[in-house]
Amino acid sequence: MSFDRLIKRIIETKNPTVVGLDPKLDYVPEFIVKKHFEKSGQTLKAAADALFEFNKSIIDEVYDIVPAIKPQAAYYEMYGHFGVETLEKTISYAKQKGMFVMTDGKRNDIGATMQAYAAAHLGTVKVGDNDIAPFDADALTVNGYLGTDGIAPLLEICRSKDKGIFVLCKTSNKSSGELQDKLIDGTPVYAVMGDMCENWGSDNIGSYGYSDVGAVVGATYPEQLTELRERLPHTMFLVPGYGAQGGGGKGVSGAFDKDGLGAVVNSSRGIMCAYKNEENCAEEDFAKAARREAVRMRDDITSYTGLK
Amino acid sequence: MSFDRLIKRIIETKNPTVVGLDPKLDYVPEFIVKKHFEKSGQTLKAAADALFEFNKSIIDEVYDIVPAIKPQAAYYEMYGHFGVETLEKTISYAKQKGMFVMTDGKRNDIGATMQAYAAAHLGTVKVGDNDIAPFDADALTVNGYLGTDGIAPLLEICRSKDKGIFVLCKTSNKSSGELQDKLIDGTPVYAVMGDMCENWGSDNIGSYGYSDVGAVVGATYPEQLTELRERLPHTMFLVPGYGAQGGGGKGVSGAFDKDGLGAVVNSSRGIMCAYKNEENCAEEDFAKAARREAVRMRDDITSYTGLK
Repeated sequence: MSFDRLIKRIIETKNPTVVGLDPKLDYVPEFIVKKHFEKSGQTLKAAADALFEFNKSIIDEVYDIVPAIKPQAAYYEMYGHFGVETLEKTISYAKQKGMFVMTDGKRNDIGATMQAYAAAHLGTVKVGDNDIAPFDADALTVNGYLGTDGIAPLLEICRSKDKGIFVLCKTSNKSSGELQDKLIDGTPVYAVMGDMCENWGSDNIGSYGYSDVGAVVGATYPEQLTELRERLPHTMFLVPGYGAQGGGGKGVSGAFDKDGLGAVVNSSRGIMCAYKNEENCAEEDFAKAARREAVRMRDDITSYTGLK
Repeated sequence: MSFDRLIKRIIETKNPTVVGLDPKLDYVPEFIVKKHFEKSGQTLKAAADALFEFNKSIIDEVYDIVPAIKPQAAYYEMYGHFGVETLEKTISYAKQKGMFVMTDGKRNDIGATMQAYAAAHLGTVKVGDNDIAPFDADALTVNGYLGTDGIAPLLEICRSKDKGIFVLCKTSNKSSGELQDKLIDGTPVYAVMGDMCENWGSDNIGSYGYSDVGAVVGATYPEQLTELRERLPHTMFLVPGYGAQGGGGKGVSGAFDKDGLGAVVNSSRGIMCAYKNEENCAEEDFAKAARREAVRMRDDITSYTGLK
């Protein structure tokens, strides 16, 4: 079961976190960008190649202490199909290094089209006699606004290919409450969505008690994290918003169960840009700075949870 | 104003419809697939090239009578970065032919990441001294579950680059009601979302009375189309679900205002696969069959609306 694999890695590394790889060109050290501009001009291809070198260096520095990466699709699409090729290469490289890869795409659509997204990101596509896996991540974030029709095609692939999904419930942004906090018969929309996750996953619960249907719940809403952890006992949480968005170790502690499991906390900019935030850190040292921040984040979070 | 451009094209062609280009390899005639397999093997590249030839032939046959295309991102991602390159080429080719292009991506995320999606699909990206437009569609479909933070970055680009968005309100699938029909203080979620669209667009209303923030409302829900048309007087509707999903000309008539404007109805499979549905249609005739179905659809819809 896909989240069993993730949880096993979390236990091995004693680290319930994930490095978000959302690499804007601005985050990439000048010396890498310059090299690729010299080679391919100021083009999308050069940008995409610079991003891959950046990602690869960070993966090389953290793969032994961090269980997973979460590349955010938007930052790759920003560089057109060249960027999308970098997403493919990043996924493949991190998996080679033994990391669990969750693509943050927040994809959503109706049945037939969701099948296409599911095949693209988690499954395989038939081309003549070949079955080809275009992206082949271990998990994908999705948006459940369209209901069960939009989730069912994913469940099929989750079960046949050993993959997982995380459905948006309570997002980390300020205005998330405009819809998500509104009450339906006394229950907030985010909890209605959470109940759907619990239901969608109920057929496939792994050996740690969590299903293959997780939920996205923002680090910036500690109360909802605690409330949902209790309400959704079989739903693994992906918790964005740690660090740059303001959530801290104490704030996310409610996302975890008594064993310190059941959640994985993401930091993107905090880790990618650690070299910019450290005093006197040379650009060339960016990947090591990312590792130092990953360690600091791990220790911050596990100091509040049972996983030590 | 971007939807002014769309509406002008609708009036010129007397046709409030859009051709959905959601090209699975299964939809592409055998002789095209075979040619590209012979050239590049049974690869994602061959598949992507076959899709582009298919799209181009359909665009060539319909650009003078249909105002717009709507490529569905999922079907391009399904063929990896090669497929995504075909999406870029399809958008560019349709625009050269004077068509309005709306990418159906249903993208959604929080502020900074939504900026990346907005730049990717509608805007430009800075690479060194260059501003490059990776996809450059005229409009993008988006999911508003995250609230205003997720929409604001799009509005900025809509206004600076003359683009538009369509926000999911009531989707065409069967289970759309699981969340969308639930009541918040007596108002269904889809109408709450619709009210947000009306509000987001209120600063930029074009000369036909419609803003740059449209809504997606499915052809399969005629009552909601009529209800929302009345409730959201400045919100242009993108109406999927005509044809293959079961909505017909009469069913979608409630989406239009008294001038026969305010909505654009999509058909994807019905047009792309017209050659399979026509009796005795040779595969080589697929694009002409698409044109015949586009004409039939136009006449079906305009027979119920004021635009003739």
